[in-house]
Amino acid sequence: MSLEPDLQNLCENLANQAQAASRTLAAITTAQKNEWLLAAAEAIEAQCDSIRAANDSDVSAARLTDMTTANLDRLTLTPARIRAMAEGLRQVAALPDPVGEIREDAVRPNGLRVQKIGVPLGVIFFLYESRPNVTIDAAGLCAKAGNAVILRGGKEAVHTNRALHAILERELVNAGLPAEAVQLVPTLDRAAVGLLLKMHERIDLVIPRGGESLIRRVAAEASMPVLKHYQGNCHVYVDEHADLAMAERIILNGKCQRPGVCNATESLLVHAAIAGEFLPRLGNSLREAGVEVRGCPRTAEWISEAKPATDADYAAEFLDLILSVKVVTGLSEALEHIRRFSSKHTDAIVTGDPGTAREFAAKVDSAAVVVNASTRFNDGFEIGLGAEIGISTDKFHARGPCGLRELTSYKYILTGNGQIRV
Amino acid sequence: MSLEPDLQNLCENLANQAQAASRTLAAITTAQKNEWLLAAAEAIEAQCDSIRAANDSDVSAARLTDMTTANLDRLTLTPARIRAMAEGLRQVAALPDPVGEIREDAVRPNGLRVQKIGVPLGVIFFLYESRPNVTIDAAGLCAKAGNAVILRGGKEAVHTNRALHAILERELVNAGLPAEAVQLVPTLDRAAVGLLLKMHERIDLVIPRGGESLIRRVAAEASMPVLKHYQGNCHVYVDEHADLAMAERIILNGKCQRPGVCNATESLLVHAAIAGEFLPRLGNSLREAGVEVRGCPRTAEWISEAKPATDADYAAEFLDLILSVKVVTGLSEALEHIRRFSSKHTDAIVTGDPGTAREFAAKVDSAAVVVNASTRFNDGFEIGLGAEIGISTDKFHARGPCGLRELTSYKYILTGNGQIRV
Repeated sequence: MSLEPDLQNLCENLANQAQAASRTLAAITTAQKNEWLLAAAEAIEAQCDSIRAANDSDVSAARLTDMTTANLDRLTLTPARIRAMAEGLRQVAALPDPVGEIREDAVRPNGLRVQKIGVPLGVIFFLYESRPNVTIDAAGLCAKAGNAVILRGGKEAVHTNRALHAILERELVNAGLPAEAVQLVPTLDRAAVGLLLKMHERIDLVIPRGGESLIRRVAAEASMPVLKHYQGNCHVYVDEHADLAMAERIILNGKCQRPGVCNATESLLVHAAIAGEFLPRLGNSLREAGVEVRGCPRTAEWISEAKPATDADYAAEFLDLILSVKVVTGLSEALEHIRRFSSKHTDAIVTGDPGTAREFAAKVDSAAVVVNASTRFNDGFEIGLGAEIGISTDKFHARGPCGLRELTSYKYILTGNGQIRV
Repeated sequence: MSLEPDLQNLCENLANQAQAASRTLAAITTAQKNEWLLAAAEAIEAQCDSIRAANDSDVSAARLTDMTTANLDRLTLTPARIRAMAEGLRQVAALPDPVGEIREDAVRPNGLRVQKIGVPLGVIFFLYESRPNVTIDAAGLCAKAGNAVILRGGKEAVHTNRALHAILERELVNAGLPAEAVQLVPTLDRAAVGLLLKMHERIDLVIPRGGESLIRRVAAEASMPVLKHYQGNCHVYVDEHADLAMAERIILNGKCQRPGVCNATESLLVHAAIAGEFLPRLGNSLREAGVEVRGCPRTAEWISEAKPATDADYAAEFLDLILSVKVVTGLSEALEHIRRFSSKHTDAIVTGDPGTAREFAAKVDSAAVVVNASTRFNDGFEIGLGAEIGISTDKFHARGPCGLRELTSYKYILTGNGQIRV
């Protein structure tokens, strides 16, 4: 007996229902979408206890595995975190609707009016790992942008995700919207992912969020566009004209404020002319903050406990309190190092010289270039998008933080009064 | 002896050189790009005779094949067509540079300045069929947007394309730009296309332009994004509130002004309430214009020579003086028919009722929806992009006509004075 046809049917049904729901969602009003978001927020808070009960099953099961403490923490929902999920939905409700937004509006010399109007992408397949709050964030953002979403969370969060999805679904129905606007893949069989990734006729975009291996697998298998970044190996280059106190603050913030995220600072390049003044004081601060330094031989001259850095260290996204450091002869060597090792996510310069800042910003080919601020600012909320579904390091469609507008496309509406071409 | 490794090497070299050239192109000034475009325009006009000689070889060879008269005409370069190519380059030179363009510029409450700046995509692989003017158009547009381009024309135009490419290359060198900014695949071996379509590490985008089978093959094989449309099965729906004289003009223009292009009208839907008044007069005009009508039974009641239309006719992109016609009971049936048969390229309504126009524009999921004008207006030049590299029916990245800006991406530049995240 083969289960394959059943799984194929199940996935096709999911995708077909999502597509049907996406057509309904594309046509509803902003008010209807916001009503659902606010009702779902309310319901999440009201059902805090049952969500925690479901989460307890996941956390108890996870404790029996080799899950790290950090991941156990990510999996755990506290009342504060549940309130934060509800708050997130309220924030999305408050954001402007990108659907129907008039992006361009011009009249041609022949009187033809040319309008470019925001429209949903259609169906989004969203894959993610342990943090269950992503279930709520992703559903809210996708639906507000008029898209149906198929969610596939990690198996370690399965009870939590099912409880959260049940609330979203119930509130969709209460709001008169199609229940299939937000679906959760009902099986943990990984083969279902492979099948869905081939359904480009029904699924318009896939967004994987999690470890690099998940994202590489999705990108290799998907037959539809993928919104993604693999890594955030983010650099800070401290130029000879840098305010060194500012540089120190920016590096400590980038490295330590939240080391496990993609826009954390992973690698430091220091201009040789200020290395002797800067590295000893930075070394002290890093030591106090518990940061392990892996440096080039010249780094070790100033930070005695620095371990020797290999190319693998310069290429690494540590996601931990580890920093690779290299002393460079100047901007050219810094740019060359960044070209070789950067993951094109976020790279920063600290300098008081505007010309150097401009050259760095022009020549670094990364989604975000930061001048005199922490790499941690490459974030949808921080740059003003209100919220983000992820950060893209690709150049096609959207690059950098992706918010509601990046979850949409557009159509042209050409309005005339009988114009023909001559 | 296998030629495979040689071909692999050749393609890798092409792609590597294109990538290196793209890095240089990304950093040069608008003035340098425009100088090259204008010098190339000049050189094309000056070398009209040698271009025609090369073209004669292609045309002579093509006469010995079964090429249609229409395609022979497309292949043939006259002095006027050569001047038009040069003029095209001058028009591209005159367009604003999308690279370095500041698309957003805002200051966050914490003082961080957030700028979104246009940048090139990188390397574009452009595949096309018989018309050799595309060699010049595509090279000019790609390079003006800061991209290196690898061109692959049809084998029937090989001598012409080589002559045109030699001029572009010479002028690149004269302008101090990398010769590899515009390359022509030097072999006609189709296996080279397959190899290049797998090089997503070096090639950022592929644009196929030609028949549907070429485009389907490219889309199936490409490992990088594809900018494309398969078909233009464009509809006109004549509503009961239409100005019938306007409707007639719009249909004749859409069908007859240039039947072989993707935005030509292929299918007509007529509201039953006005069919008896409209179809007889339209039938006369179509007959005079030499248009064959394939219609539903109710069409045949009013246009006696109409042949019966099959579903295949309603799905067809005729690219010829043939029009499929269907009488519908109203907007709902028109929308349903368009959803079933449209290629999502261009669909038009003729109506005097603004509410009906709005509903049609909102519900038709096509790259362009046209109200009271010819479908032929879905074109980059006509909507004000200055020129176009093609029309996309996808929703990811760009939809509809794609001009210079659609050949670019962007980066964020975040400029602060020491901001850190708290």
